[in-house]
Amino acid sequence: MAPKQTPGQADDPCTNSVVQFDTYPLEHVYRLVEPDPVLLVATGSLHEVTHNIMAIGFHMMMQHESPPLIDITLGPWDTSFALLQKYRTCVLAIPSVEMASDVVDIGNCSAADADADGDKWKRFALEARPIQQVATLLIAGPHILANIECVVEDTAFVRKYAMWALRPVKAWTRRGEPGTIFHHRGQGIMVTDGEVIDLSQRMVEWQEFLD
Amino acid sequence: MAPKQTPGQADDPCTNSVVQFDTYPLEHVYRLVEPDPVLLVATGSLHEVTHNIMAIGFHMMMQHESPPLIDITLGPWDTSFALLQKYRTCVLAIPSVEMASDVVDIGNCSAADADADGDKWKRFALEARPIQQVATLLIAGPHILANIECVVEDTAFVRKYAMWALRPVKAWTRRGEPGTIFHHRGQGIMVTDGEVIDLSQRMVEWQEFLD
Repeated sequence: MAPKQTPGQADDPCTNSVVQFDTYPLEHVYRLVEPDPVLLVATGSLHEVTHNIMAIGFHMMMQHESPPLIDITLGPWDTSFALLQKYRTCVLAIPSVEMASDVVDIGNCSAADADADGDKWKRFALEARPIQQVATLLIAGPHILANIECVVEDTAFVRKYAMWALRPVKAWTRRGEPGTIFHHRGQGIMVTDGEVIDLSQRMVEWQEFLD
Repeated sequence: MAPKQTPGQADDPCTNSVVQFDTYPLEHVYRLVEPDPVLLVATGSLHEVTHNIMAIGFHMMMQHESPPLIDITLGPWDTSFALLQKYRTCVLAIPSVEMASDVVDIGNCSAADADADGDKWKRFALEARPIQQVATLLIAGPHILANIECVVEDTAFVRKYAMWALRPVKAWTRRGEPGTIFHHRGQGIMVTDGEVIDLSQRMVEWQEFLD
């Protein structure tokens, strides 16, 4: 079954829905990824109704900029692997803590399962919105904090380590409250963000990364 | 100046000091690293008094096991780069939130600086303890939660991306309270761990990673 789709505009695919996203500077994407939120990954084509969604905890920023680069581990044991190979594009979305149970469930069911839950988008009340720039989509939902649209930059590590180097080409954050991310300690044990400690005044050697 | 050194024993370098560490199973190291604590990295040789310490935020688990593999970004702009190239071993240590200011300061001063703060070990009241297995050391201090001794597994990504694939060969966690880790949002903004949410009962597809 095709998911609910909201017609998008070229550079603002989010203006027609309740949850609105604003574009976010690519050179600041590391601020979203470096703390290591559990991520949702959307692969496949919305147009061809092959799009899939999964959850990952193994990822990192590899370069801040020029260009920003993100590594993710996504292996042939995942249904999304063939989709990432075929389309060479994906969207990384950051869920907030209200989605923690759903994120674990997303990571524990497969689009390949021939059961009534095969359409994960519908099951988890997520909306796949078209993006014009690349043949992919944006993940929308009441608890999606950000989306980072990526293209595959380097596949040199895929065969040996199932690791993909991705280059963000566009990013969005949710309008309104920033929300609370969560991290994976393994075994389905999640931990939310707690106290924020601003030590930016001590970053004397890294002035180029301060606002 | 040589740091304070505590004589160690072959497989238990920590029994002679106030802060005691117990060995931690290598196949569970991902539980320490996947949530993405800010890490301290020790490189160089304690014996030759070339050991150095720095802080990193760009790292990930790449494989759970067989063997466990960790990627870190550490570039030629870091003094530690030449030490990692030479000795092909390092120790990743996990600091607790009480060290957040010190960790930022460690990341904002260089062993190459010809000033009175050149000996970072002394300045930050950290102890370099010998490890017998590999020519490296263990970082001890009142707010060090864990140490992961690693050898360089793969340098294929170093030239292009300054990324090192490391293989943990031994790990320790602090005896007593587990402590609170913290993450880097960039710009010196740190955030501590907050609420723990146990969703292990939903990990139906990943039983092999449950205790």
